[in-house]
Amino acid sequence: MAQKWVYGFGNGKADGKADMKNLLGGKGANLAEMSAIGLPVPPGFTVTTEVCTHFYANKQQYPDGLKAEVDKAMAAIEKSVGCNFGDAKNPLLVSVRSGARASMPGMMDTVLNLGLNDVTVEGLAKRANDERFAWDSYRRFITMYSDVVLGLERHDFEDVLDTYKRRHNLTSDTQIKADAWKSIVAEFKQIVKDKLKRDFPQDPQEQLWGAIGAVFQSWMTPRAVTYRQIHNIPAEWGTAVNVQAMVFGNMGDDCATGVAFTRDPSTGENFFYGEYLVNAQGEDVVAGIRTPQTLTIKAKEREGSKLPAMEEVMPDVFKQLNDVRHILEKHYRDMQDIEFTVQQSKLYMLQTRNGKRTAAAALKVACDMVAEGLITQDEAVLRVDASSLDQLLHPTLDPKAKKQVIAKGLPASPGAAQGKIVFTADEAEVWAKRGEQVLLVRVETSPEDIHGMHAAAGIITSRGGMTSHAAVVARGMGRPCVAGAGSLQIDTKGKTLKVGTVEAKEGDVLTIDGAAGEIILGAVPTVQAELSGDFAKLMGWADAARRMGVRANAETPEDAKTARHFGAEGIGLCRTEHMFFDPNRIQKVREMIFADDVEGRKKALAFLAPMQKADFKSIFKIMLGLPVTVRLLDPPLHEFLPHTDADIAAFAKTANIDDKRVRQRLSQLHEANPMLGHRGCRLGITYPEIYEMQVRAIFEAALEVAKEEGKTVTPEVMIPLIATRKELTILKTMTDRVAGEVGIKDYTVGTMIELPRAALMADDIAHDAAFFSFGTNDLTQTTLGLSRDDAGNFLPAYTDAGIYARDPFQTLDTQGVGQLIEMGLQKGRKTKPDLKVGICGEHGGDPDSIAFCEKTGLDYVSCSPFRVPVARLAAAQAALKSGTGKTVPMKKKAANG
Amino acid sequence: MAQKWVYGFGNGKADGKADMKNLLGGKGANLAEMSAIGLPVPPGFTVTTEVCTHFYANKQQYPDGLKAEVDKAMAAIEKSVGCNFGDAKNPLLVSVRSGARASMPGMMDTVLNLGLNDVTVEGLAKRANDERFAWDSYRRFITMYSDVVLGLERHDFEDVLDTYKRRHNLTSDTQIKADAWKSIVAEFKQIVKDKLKRDFPQDPQEQLWGAIGAVFQSWMTPRAVTYRQIHNIPAEWGTAVNVQAMVFGNMGDDCATGVAFTRDPSTGENFFYGEYLVNAQGEDVVAGIRTPQTLTIKAKEREGSKLPAMEEVMPDVFKQLNDVRHILEKHYRDMQDIEFTVQQSKLYMLQTRNGKRTAAAALKVACDMVAEGLITQDEAVLRVDASSLDQLLHPTLDPKAKKQVIAKGLPASPGAAQGKIVFTADEAEVWAKRGEQVLLVRVETSPEDIHGMHAAAGIITSRGGMTSHAAVVARGMGRPCVAGAGSLQIDTKGKTLKVGTVEAKEGDVLTIDGAAGEIILGAVPTVQAELSGDFAKLMGWADAARRMGVRANAETPEDAKTARHFGAEGIGLCRTEHMFFDPNRIQKVREMIFADDVEGRKKALAFLAPMQKADFKSIFKIMLGLPVTVRLLDPPLHEFLPHTDADIAAFAKTANIDDKRVRQRLSQLHEANPMLGHRGCRLGITYPEIYEMQVRAIFEAALEVAKEEGKTVTPEVMIPLIATRKELTILKTMTDRVAGEVGIKDYTVGTMIELPRAALMADDIAHDAAFFSFGTNDLTQTTLGLSRDDAGNFLPAYTDAGIYARDPFQTLDTQGVGQLIEMGLQKGRKTKPDLKVGICGEHGGDPDSIAFCEKTGLDYVSCSPFRVPVARLAAAQAALKSGTGKTVPMKKKAANG
Repeated sequence: MAQKWVYGFGNGKADGKADMKNLLGGKGANLAEMSAIGLPVPPGFTVTTEVCTHFYANKQQYPDGLKAEVDKAMAAIEKSVGCNFGDAKNPLLVSVRSGARASMPGMMDTVLNLGLNDVTVEGLAKRANDERFAWDSYRRFITMYSDVVLGLERHDFEDVLDTYKRRHNLTSDTQIKADAWKSIVAEFKQIVKDKLKRDFPQDPQEQLWGAIGAVFQSWMTPRAVTYRQIHNIPAEWGTAVNVQAMVFGNMGDDCATGVAFTRDPSTGENFFYGEYLVNAQGEDVVAGIRTPQTLTIKAKEREGSKLPAMEEVMPDVFKQLNDVRHILEKHYRDMQDIEFTVQQSKLYMLQTRNGKRTAAAALKVACDMVAEGLITQDEAVLRVDASSLDQLLHPTLDPKAKKQVIAKGLPASPGAAQGKIVFTADEAEVWAKRGEQVLLVRVETSPEDIHGMHAAAGIITSRGGMTSHAAVVARGMGRPCVAGAGSLQIDTKGKTLKVGTVEAKEGDVLTIDGAAGEIILGAVPTVQAELSGDFAKLMGWADAARRMGVRANAETPEDAKTARHFGAEGIGLCRTEHMFFDPNRIQKVREMIFADDVEGRKKALAFLAPMQKADFKSIFKIMLGLPVTVRLLDPPLHEFLPHTDADIAAFAKTANIDDKRVRQRLSQLHEANPMLGHRGCRLGITYPEIYEMQVRAIFEAALEVAKEEGKTVTPEVMIPLIATRKELTILKTMTDRVAGEVGIKDYTVGTMIELPRAALMADDIAHDAAFFSFGTNDLTQTTLGLSRDDAGNFLPAYTDAGIYARDPFQTLDTQGVGQLIEMGLQKGRKTKPDLKVGICGEHGGDPDSIAFCEKTGLDYVSCSPFRVPVARLAAAQAALKSGTGKTVPMKKKAANG
Repeated sequence: MAQKWVYGFGNGKADGKADMKNLLGGKGANLAEMSAIGLPVPPGFTVTTEVCTHFYANKQQYPDGLKAEVDKAMAAIEKSVGCNFGDAKNPLLVSVRSGARASMPGMMDTVLNLGLNDVTVEGLAKRANDERFAWDSYRRFITMYSDVVLGLERHDFEDVLDTYKRRHNLTSDTQIKADAWKSIVAEFKQIVKDKLKRDFPQDPQEQLWGAIGAVFQSWMTPRAVTYRQIHNIPAEWGTAVNVQAMVFGNMGDDCATGVAFTRDPSTGENFFYGEYLVNAQGEDVVAGIRTPQTLTIKAKEREGSKLPAMEEVMPDVFKQLNDVRHILEKHYRDMQDIEFTVQQSKLYMLQTRNGKRTAAAALKVACDMVAEGLITQDEAVLRVDASSLDQLLHPTLDPKAKKQVIAKGLPASPGAAQGKIVFTADEAEVWAKRGEQVLLVRVETSPEDIHGMHAAAGIITSRGGMTSHAAVVARGMGRPCVAGAGSLQIDTKGKTLKVGTVEAKEGDVLTIDGAAGEIILGAVPTVQAELSGDFAKLMGWADAARRMGVRANAETPEDAKTARHFGAEGIGLCRTEHMFFDPNRIQKVREMIFADDVEGRKKALAFLAPMQKADFKSIFKIMLGLPVTVRLLDPPLHEFLPHTDADIAAFAKTANIDDKRVRQRLSQLHEANPMLGHRGCRLGITYPEIYEMQVRAIFEAALEVAKEEGKTVTPEVMIPLIATRKELTILKTMTDRVAGEVGIKDYTVGTMIELPRAALMADDIAHDAAFFSFGTNDLTQTTLGLSRDDAGNFLPAYTDAGIYARDPFQTLDTQGVGQLIEMGLQKGRKTKPDLKVGICGEHGGDPDSIAFCEKTGLDYVSCSPFRVPVARLAAAQAALKSGTGKTVPMKKKAANG
């Protein structure tokens, strides 16, 4: 059988259906589907995406037989509507639209009223008994066609229209009479002739093939090509072309055109939400020249509109439309975004597709539809965009409040916060202790600022990207943060912040919106996030469906509590360096670093040991019954040292060490590339006493909590930055020895896999590890050779050029880094089939990365506390999509439900 | 058939042979071999390595049947020599020695005279008619046995002996009479009784099994275990034990003992080289108490010795020994290192093995043996240690000269150099221009010092390891360098260098020995390396045997000339940044970096373009007919900027830029981890005009040289730091466009593979690359997460702990990084079967790494000019060993030759 190039639809029948999007494009497939289920769709046909592919594979030639199929399909439309294409008395007009699998910028949109020429316009006028309508349609057609098919400038035509209106003191196109349109059309045709040295095409067949060709040509515009490159859409997919009999919303007051959502897309309420205009064509609704009217009386009242609702103006058609709304929701089992036209009191459906919605709406629609029996719980889980949950978990600015935005930065950590600004971490802590709510303002933050970031309600930086220290730590802590607000001039010594003419001093109040990246003068009221019953319901369904565990990265009691509140099933990464930065301890930590020998270090460590133990006890108590993975000291020692002259002097004095020696040691410890330096397990190998103190503190804490609470506590000791099995062997041996000395039996030892070599050698390393946790932040840095701290200088240019589709520190580079994760997991499990494998980088809270983890077979993901619900949902979705979910397959369930 | 645990030898027969080293150990296998070919070997037997393995696999129990086999073998010895073990009148004495596959520190060495006790000593005395000899032998036995078998301290025994000699004013053991020995032996036995609360074992069987057990025990001493871990020797290999009838070199003046090499091990001359002592046991030769005598009269004359040569003293035995020498060389086809004993004018051979030799000797021996028809050319190629060639290529200190070493550092780059010391690169250049020979002294060097390093005859630093900037660059340039001499106190401002009480000022003369890491006061005469005809001969044979190409990393005309002189077959890495550091250009480079926009940058680049073109022209001319791979700009821009206050002020003034702006830009360009920062192709993507200038300069230079010389020049443009195919696509498109504009057709574009992601995605990247060059320096840094600049702080500790057997920046980490190289090559060739693949890191000149490259199937290696001969030889050896060599298989050749 020869290949079929054209698929017709109309009159309750269709060659295609909704699941043929690859062949017919999204628009064409849904038009076919609506037609097939008996909805009023103007008859038409779809030229398939395969024609597009053939077109480009064959020097822009159409396949044999296409012309005949199009002719046949046009004849079917003619028969259906009772007019003929190009007929002088009873002309058929059509619309031509592109329709790829997904809507794509750069593609040709629409040509309406195709088939009009100097002859048929008269026929149309007579048939409609409305000369003005016919010439209005003709001028619209000439404008659109000249723009999108002939490549002329739209504004050349609009200028003519504007000039006419100005000259005649008119404000609206509707005021223009038929004769005026005639002369305007003449001018339009002259423009075409002047520009192209030929007449505007009068032959409807030429018009039709011109428009079809223009759709295919638009597939290769630079903008479309770039978009596809960035979104990894293969050029071979191609676009379809939809040709459809015109229906007119602009034939008089019994005509209308409109768009609607079957439910409220911002709240999710089951409420018919939309707009329409009487006597208008589709483009008028979007153009915003006339004020659109509501569909329902209820909506009109809610919005306080004075314009009559469609329900009042054309109650019969409205009822019909409302019926269609219910039919579509039942049929598609999702909220729909529709376009319709009413021609002489008859309703026509021009488009339907799943409607975009806010996070809150998605949640409500999904839960309501389960209650209504429309979808299963698993489907509900799949209906909510996991990333969007973030919006629901943080307080937000009161949308009704006024605000003066003084600067914009990156939306580094969501939520709104306000407070008096301070310029150092120490000040933040001092002010917070005396009960002030503060915002910490820094050029950029470093680990020394952690206590100040904790003390602050929010953080502002003028430098750094979405994965700068400030951004990462703030997200981890759930503190709102606007990072990299480059227009801010921060004078830390002078304690002022300038931007343009605005200056704010220490103590002045600012507000930030971390989701929008806005910095606002003064205090703006915020609204606390309320987690609805729907939220709990959906999380419950997600938990039932997911295979992977979800843990949190947390190291303070506060973080641990938040994590547990949000449903974390343990801690996947408890960093221990944070505890070293505490202002009460940092002096001793520094003395430890300055000690001349092991004994000196041990003395300082003995001071720190009980504090670490207390930290661990409090976390083990909060997470009682759940696993806690503690990572031993990771950052290079110089991160703990004083850097400013004042700090150096202060430390030297307190520690009673010569100032010069302090500086000498600082220079000794300085590293050219600290990321690749003396850190992680390398500290444990060279200064075993540090790791030994930490391990002892962990084990003693576990035993004491177990005794106090009467429940076993099983700490998981995690060794960072392993590159060779031998490193792990040495440190595991030490850990086992200390365990013996302390007398603990329930514990495990595992490792981060965060260097390419560790992934490559995972089979060897697994011999000594009870678990692996992929540290994808560092693994991404080393695999891509890309410093997270420095990438800000060129990563935006890279993303613009489509080199990395997305920031690889936010969404896992599954092609590259992903290979190492797969390798690490497979090799590790080859040695030890029951090896527990998780991920604890920033990616652990990113839905796309979570999907990769599910596919790869990881046991759990670990993310910052505020991302835990996102991860729970994303893990469930990944499980359902890959068929690894715990629940029964969807279709069966749907059949049962 | 039951397993055979014991292999006997003696009387012209043997159960084993030379190629059974795995089972019999090196010593045992060669004893068997010598016995089998009829050489006079005292009869004995070898307990196999499998007994050792069994011993440790079975709770230190010997296998069933071992006892019976040993008894049988002892009986065979008894029968052969006509004495009986433990017999009061005619006692058999034996030696017991360990013998693993290779000699290993920490293993038990030797127990001589085993079988002596209070009774047999009398029998021995009577049989030898020499009471003194018998009791001397007994005291030797007690000392050795107590030390190595009973675990007592040797010095406790030596103290007794020393006390006796002091008390009796004796200077030599030979002056001690029989009765004295008797009383000393009594004291020795008392020591044993005091320490162990039991008598020294009198039962010869107990002695024998004690000694055998001690050999096996020594296999597991911590020192042996550590050695095996570091050298990757499996514990399962085990050691053998050799038991052999004693022969006595100490029974009178017709007795002797000696060691010899069949040729001179320092020159390679075919000259019998060795020492012997009359009336002595083996240990006396080594102990150095008596002055050993020469073997030949010729040697005696050469050395001006007054002691008679063996050739004179015992001409018959000497003739016999000289015959054995020739037999062994013919049989083993290599220079041998032998041990022998003469007992009452009868020669016995106790050991033979391949002799260690200097590089010069290895070269001469190999060439001579080919001429003598002993070995094939391919074998000769395999006989010379490739690394050792380094010794032959650089001038060395005159070994006869006196020298005062004031400090030691790392032997960072071989060769000797002397000169007046200067403390800055600029001074070095100034002094050198006025004809002075200088040594550049720096705390550490940076790319800004390159011109000074070039100008200097040698380099000294007080900081940095074997792979510090100074070390790497110096090796690349062939400049001698002593790096990381930590005891030096360098005062750059004061222009002095202090070490202990010695102080040297600018202009004072020092000498360095880069191969020894020595810094010497004053001028020490040097000897220029002379490349012998043998060298050229061997290189010719190597070139005939190797499969891989050998190129050089070179970017100056001087380097390129050296490379070509040493036989490089092209340039594998021509860095272009060096050209930017030139003092005449750096100002413009900096202005380019400070330009506000593309136009400003282009202006500065226009100044640099003709200079780059001239650089390329000169290199293309030197390498005419050979390929040249040019790498586009790689280091981050901040490396080019001024850093000291003075430099900043000077630059700001010349460039007419505000000082503040200069500092601002410096801070903007500062990077936390420059190694992972804005460098390599990332510069080409963000500042395309820089790469475009370079590409244009390369192509124009190539065309001009081609025209001038009438020969095609085919430059290979290499893009650094590629992580994604898209980066390469963008830059290749640019390169192709410029090529079109310039009008060049003969060129290729390829990429470095130096990031793990590039290796992982090599199949994708290969679509746009004509060649790959593995940049193993950076690939090692990223794969291991290890900064070359910072590793010095902990890498020594790591090597000590056996975590990395060798510095992974010197010898490729084949287990980890090697996987990525294999992957990159295989994936690349899958896409493009004819993809040319090389390596251009430091590893390209390391023989072990070269062997890996051969095995993996790379097309070429590229290394610093002075390593080219090393690489040529190593590549040939690797090819011959893996059977990928170009010549016919060795055995056939040997048969033909």
